[in-house]
Amino acid sequence: MWRTIQVVATVEHTVAVAVAAGGGSEAVDEHNLIPPFNFAMVDNGIFRSGFPDSANFPFLQKLDLRSIVYLCPEPYPESNTEFLKSNEIKLFQFGIDGNKHDHMTALHFLSEPFVNIPEDTIREALKLVLDVRNHPVLIHCNRGKHRTGCLVGCLRKLQRWCLSSVFDEYQRFAAAKARVSDQRFMELFDVSSVKHLPMSFSCSKK
Amino acid sequence: MWRTIQVVATVEHTVAVAVAAGGGSEAVDEHNLIPPFNFAMVDNGIFRSGFPDSANFPFLQKLDLRSIVYLCPEPYPESNTEFLKSNEIKLFQFGIDGNKHDHMTALHFLSEPFVNIPEDTIREALKLVLDVRNHPVLIHCNRGKHRTGCLVGCLRKLQRWCLSSVFDEYQRFAAAKARVSDQRFMELFDVSSVKHLPMSFSCSKK
Repeated sequence: MWRTIQVVATVEHTVAVAVAAGGGSEAVDEHNLIPPFNFAMVDNGIFRSGFPDSANFPFLQKLDLRSIVYLCPEPYPESNTEFLKSNEIKLFQFGIDGNKHDHMTALHFLSEPFVNIPEDTIREALKLVLDVRNHPVLIHCNRGKHRTGCLVGCLRKLQRWCLSSVFDEYQRFAAAKARVSDQRFMELFDVSSVKHLPMSFSCSKK
Repeated sequence: MWRTIQVVATVEHTVAVAVAAGGGSEAVDEHNLIPPFNFAMVDNGIFRSGFPDSANFPFLQKLDLRSIVYLCPEPYPESNTEFLKSNEIKLFQFGIDGNKHDHMTALHFLSEPFVNIPEDTIREALKLVLDVRNHPVLIHCNRGKHRTGCLVGCLRKLQRWCLSSVFDEYQRFAAAKARVSDQRFMELFDVSSVKHLPMSFSCSKK
């Protein structure tokens, strides 16, 4: 369902990242940290974003990430893999298709509410995100809108947010690209199967 | 510059809130927590939102707030004040005007970049937000877009975010209501006067 890359830090890797980031330490000195597109804090130890590139590495290093939950089927770029190795960050990849059906009609969405968002895969990813042993964790897909939005939305349902608030947050990141199919998926997602998981994390805890 | 309301919890207040919230415990049982409009986590112990009403109280109680930084000149509603008392939440109010100049021209913005956003007031509010003794703290104005967006944007500058990322976050909440004057204010805000403050809080800390 997902694959893990065990990594080991080396001095070369650290240097490689500094170069790839165009001089990480300089960037910090210049007060020029660049979060990934659509970056946000979801909860304590849980972050979300679009696809990070080398320009974002100096910022990501400050998050002290323990793991990344990556929701696309495409292989991880070499520079990103090197960054994970040099920072001992574990990668969990879930290959969910991009679900680009922008020209579908609302009627089509209603007849196929789960277009390319597999509930079992989201449930497996959610379990990893909820496991504090993986924190701090960054969830990302390509644009941080649809796949990431659906996973975070399911997490909010588990946190007992009302559906309108779940959609409000989803739409804040998806903006003009918001999809009826994604919101149908979140609405129909059954959280009962993950309710047994420890909900120790919470906005209220530091 | 700001005023503080010292509060004491009483059983009556707790009951009053439960009623005002339409039955807080029931709402929780129904998995129906309602965050305030435009609610989000800014960093550990720091939240932002639009104006909370009684429907949001059950959710806000889960944040274990120690204080609220309120950025509007209008007096706090009685039901909200009662909620603060019953939960021993300290209120810091900064009366910043709504800055509703939607019909101004870009030229006008350039000639008056600080339209109604007073830098000294934002700096004072920022100092309170950065003080971990006030955490968890909720920052809010009316819609959680402009005044709250400017304060959070100045905090991001202090966290050394590049300006384009600061604006990206601001626009996510302001959406169609994004203002050139607010972004000019954040761009010109001088963080050097608050750089001496402890930056112990960070996305990377739990």
